[in-house]
Amino acid sequence: MQDRKIALLGHGVVGSGVMEVLTKNHDSIAKKAGFPIEVKYILDLRDFPELPYHDRFVKDFNVILNDPEISVVVEVLGGLHPAYDFTKAALLAGKSVVTSNKEVVATCGAELVNLARQQGQSYLFEASVGGGIPIIRPLHQCLAANQLDEICGILNGTTNYILTRMMKAGLGFDDALAEAQQKSYAERDPSADIEGVDACRKICILAALAFGRHIYPQHVHTEGITKLTLADTNYAEEHGYAVKLLGRAVRQGDGAVYAVVAPFLVSHDNPLSNVEDVFNGILVKGDAIGDVMFYGRGAGKLPTASAVVADVIDIVKNEAHHKQMLWEDSGENLVSDYTAMTYRFYLRVQGADRREELERTFGGECDTVGGDLALITRPMREADFRSAAAAFSPLGVIRVLDD
Amino acid sequence: MQDRKIALLGHGVVGSGVMEVLTKNHDSIAKKAGFPIEVKYILDLRDFPELPYHDRFVKDFNVILNDPEISVVVEVLGGLHPAYDFTKAALLAGKSVVTSNKEVVATCGAELVNLARQQGQSYLFEASVGGGIPIIRPLHQCLAANQLDEICGILNGTTNYILTRMMKAGLGFDDALAEAQQKSYAERDPSADIEGVDACRKICILAALAFGRHIYPQHVHTEGITKLTLADTNYAEEHGYAVKLLGRAVRQGDGAVYAVVAPFLVSHDNPLSNVEDVFNGILVKGDAIGDVMFYGRGAGKLPTASAVVADVIDIVKNEAHHKQMLWEDSGENLVSDYTAMTYRFYLRVQGADRREELERTFGGECDTVGGDLALITRPMREADFRSAAAAFSPLGVIRVLDD
Repeated sequence: MQDRKIALLGHGVVGSGVMEVLTKNHDSIAKKAGFPIEVKYILDLRDFPELPYHDRFVKDFNVILNDPEISVVVEVLGGLHPAYDFTKAALLAGKSVVTSNKEVVATCGAELVNLARQQGQSYLFEASVGGGIPIIRPLHQCLAANQLDEICGILNGTTNYILTRMMKAGLGFDDALAEAQQKSYAERDPSADIEGVDACRKICILAALAFGRHIYPQHVHTEGITKLTLADTNYAEEHGYAVKLLGRAVRQGDGAVYAVVAPFLVSHDNPLSNVEDVFNGILVKGDAIGDVMFYGRGAGKLPTASAVVADVIDIVKNEAHHKQMLWEDSGENLVSDYTAMTYRFYLRVQGADRREELERTFGGECDTVGGDLALITRPMREADFRSAAAAFSPLGVIRVLDD
Repeated sequence: MQDRKIALLGHGVVGSGVMEVLTKNHDSIAKKAGFPIEVKYILDLRDFPELPYHDRFVKDFNVILNDPEISVVVEVLGGLHPAYDFTKAALLAGKSVVTSNKEVVATCGAELVNLARQQGQSYLFEASVGGGIPIIRPLHQCLAANQLDEICGILNGTTNYILTRMMKAGLGFDDALAEAQQKSYAERDPSADIEGVDACRKICILAALAFGRHIYPQHVHTEGITKLTLADTNYAEEHGYAVKLLGRAVRQGDGAVYAVVAPFLVSHDNPLSNVEDVFNGILVKGDAIGDVMFYGRGAGKLPTASAVVADVIDIVKNEAHHKQMLWEDSGENLVSDYTAMTYRFYLRVQGADRREELERTFGGECDTVGGDLALITRPMREADFRSAAAAFSPLGVIRVLDD
C-alpha cells in the first residue's frame, strides 16, 4: 500500500500535535484513510535537532511547492501572512490544503474555497472553529437537509474561563484574567480573546457555512468582556442567568444576516448557560432539526491536531473526488444593521435616585446593586434602547438572549 | 440538470417528514446534492388519497426493486421484517439504502454494511441514533484521527423526560410515564423505551462505529428505569446528582468492549446531567480530542427526517464513489463481563437498624431516606458489590458515573 506524503507548515503547538497524533494513531489512521500518511516535510524557521524527525525540517517553502509527491499541505502557521500566500500557492500548484488558521479562513475563506474548487482540490478547516469539536463538517453535511436559521455559540475558551471564574469564584475581571494567564489559558497579550476578535473570526466562518456567503469580520459588531464587573455578573447569577461571550448569526427575512459578538445574559434553561471553564458550545438552529448543540474543548494542542488530521484523512480517502464547500463572496450589505435587532437589555446605572424614571422608561423592575440600580428592560429595538439609555449614562449594558 | 429518483419505504411519521423536508427545502437540497431529488415511489399498504403526491404510492416492493431509475431506497418502515429483507434486496439490486431503523442496524448492521461495500453502494443510518443530532458521521469522519475510548449517552428521550419529571416535579414513575404518554412522548406500549431496549440498540450502533466491530444487543446488560422510585431520585437530587438512563460503551485493554444500559447517578459537573426533558446528549471520549458532547432532540418527525435526507444528499452528491463504513462482525466474546467493571454504587436498604454494618461493608455514610437507609459505596467491582449487597436485600441500586 503506497503511502501518501504530506507537508506541515509550522511546528508550533498545533503542528507538533499533528505529528503526535499521526505517529500515535498511525495504523488506525492508515486503515481509515486507505493509505498510510507520512509527513515528508515540516516547514519551520527553527531547528529541532532533538526530535526523532529532525531531518524532515526545511526552511524554504518552494521545496514543498515543487515536490509533486506532496498532495496535501497542512498550514498551521497562524497569522495572515505568509499563511495565506503559501495556501494560495499550494492550491495553484494542485495541492489540497488543511488549516486550523481562523484568521486566514475568516478573512479569505471565500477566495480560497473557490480557488480550491477551480483547481479540483480541497480547502478544509475543521480545526479553525471549536478546536476538536466536529462543527464544520456537521454544518456542511449532516445538517444539509435544513435551512439553518441561527448559530449561537461560546466560541472562545479563554473568555469563558474568565467569565466562569467571575460567576463561580467571585473573582474580578483582572484577577480572573491573571489566573487564566497563569494556567496558560490566556496569552500574555490577551487582547484578541478578551476583545472578542477571536470569537468574531469564528462566527464569521460558521455563518459563511450556514448561509453560504462570506461574512467579513470588519462588518460584525464586536464587543469584548473587558467592561464587565462583578456587579454585573452577581446580578446575573442572582436572577438565574449566566454571562457568556457569544458569537451570534441569524438569518434575516430579506436575505441579510444579523451578526454580532458580545456578552449576553443566558438563562439557565438554555444549554449554553451550562458550558463552563474553557469549554466551547455551539448551538445551531435549523428549520427541521430544531436546536442542536456541539460541546467540547475549543482549543488545545491535541483536540485541534485531531481535527486537522481528520481533514487530512478525508482528503486522502477521497482523493479521486475532492470535497468542496459552497461559499460565495459577498459585498458590503450582507450584514444587517445590528441596532435594528430587538432584545431585552440588562442596564445598570449609577446611584439609586432614578428608580421610577428607569422603570417608566424601560419597563421591568429595578434592583439595588451595590449603591446603584439595575433592571432588565422589556424587549426593545437596540437603537431605541441605546437612545433612551444614553440619558442615564449606563455603567453596564448586556443583551439578554431570549428564544 | 437531471434529477435523481428515490423511493420511500413507509409513510408513517418519519416518512411523511422526509416528504415534507424534501418538498420544503427542495431547491437548497438540489444545490447541495448537485441534482434535484424526486421521490418516485412511496411504499405503503395504506392509501392517502388526500395527499398531493397520492399517485406515487405503490404496494408492491418489486416495482421499486425492478426500476433501474431508482438509485436510493429510504427505509423508514420500522421493525425488523420486512425492513431487513427489503434493505438486503435493494443493496443486491445495486441501490444504496438510507434508514432510520435502529432495530435493523443494531441487529444486522455488520452484514448490511459489508453487503453495501461488496455492491459498491452505501448503507447509511445517521437517523438511527439521536434523531437529528449529527453523531454517526462525526463518529465516522470527524473523530477519525482519534482512538475512541468511550461513548456514554442519554439515548432515549422518553425515559429522559420521565426522569426529568421525577427529579424536577416530584412525580412518581407511573405519573411521569402517564404524563409522557399524554404528551405523545411515550407510546401506549412504552416497554421498549422504559426497559432500555431502545437505548440498547443505539449504544450498540455507536459502539460498533467507535470500535469497528458489531456489538449485538443481546450481549449488552440492559436495565430500564421501572424500578426507580422517588426515594432514589430525591436522594440523588439532594446529593448533587441527576439520575439518567445511560448507554455506556468503553474500550477495554484486552480488545474487548464493556457495554451496559442502566440508570446512573450523574454528577452535576458532567455535561450529561444538564440534558433534560426529551433531549438526548452523547458524550464521546477520544485520546486526542478529550470529551465532546452532541446535544439535541433525539426523536421527532422533522429532526429524524432531516437526518435521513442528509444521508440521501450525501449519496447523491457522491454517487461516483459511495461512502462506506468500517464495521466487522464479531463473535460471542467481544462484550466483556459487565460485573468486572468498578463503580461506586448507590444502595438503599429497608429499615434503619443496619447502619453500622452497611458503612463497614461498603464505606461511605448512611443517610435516612423515608424510614430506610441509603449510601454511596466506595469504588467496588460490580461482582463484589452484588455479592455483598445481597445480604441486605436492596430496595434500590444505581451505579455512579465517575470520570
